[in-house]
Amino acid sequence: MVVGPPPRYNEPMKHFRHHLFVCENRRDPTDPRGCCAGRGGVELREAFKAELKRRGLSGSARANAAGCLDACADGPTVVVYPEGVWYGGVSVADVNEIIESHIVNGVPVERLRLRRLEEPGAKDP
Amino acid sequence: MVVGPPPRYNEPMKHFRHHLFVCENRRDPTDPRGCCAGRGGVELREAFKAELKRRGLSGSARANAAGCLDACADGPTVVVYPEGVWYGGVSVADVNEIIESHIVNGVPVERLRLRRLEEPGAKDP
Repeated sequence: MVVGPPPRYNEPMKHFRHHLFVCENRRDPTDPRGCCAGRGGVELREAFKAELKRRGLSGSARANAAGCLDACADGPTVVVYPEGVWYGGVSVADVNEIIESHIVNGVPVERLRLRRLEEPGAKDP
Repeated sequence: MVVGPPPRYNEPMKHFRHHLFVCENRRDPTDPRGCCAGRGGVELREAFKAELKRRGLSGSARANAAGCLDACADGPTVVVYPEGVWYGGVSVADVNEIIESHIVNGVPVERLRLRRLEEPGAKDP
């Protein structure tokens, strides 16, 4: 598999300082994989959006809807870029902690982190 | 506005080496902003997905559907992480060039780049 050189990280700060993608993928209820929408992904994204707005952070962090992030078994799944930090099994109750610790203070929330997905070539089991 | 320290970029390579988010947001056809779906965003994402698969790159790069990326006027909009490179007005005809130049060889396609959106706090006009 041919891939290019590693991305350059010394470029200026980008549009959003943190860009959160929250999976809202919805599958047929009979699908054995389940889906993030069925596990609360839609409400989760709304909660992130509301809390970022409440804190006045909407200009520097964005909670974006995403289609399937290929980690259904760990849903609801959230990935935060440019850091590339993945979270799984996130609930609305975790939103404030993720924003306070990770977005405001730069410290990812370890207990929710999907480090397996931060390795190259990782796939949903 | 309080934000945390800059993300750490010296961490190991993440799940996907390149994670492309293609806006598929659809608005009411009467909305003056237009929308990426109305400009071909859905077909664009399918084209990225197919071309990555054809080249055997599906394990290292993923073309993900995204909700509104807040850059409607420049749609269809694509952002590539972790680089944080933004593209606008992307068509199916541009897919091969973006994959060959950016994803394979690490050189973003300047003629499609939305550098305005790579600045902090940039907003859709």
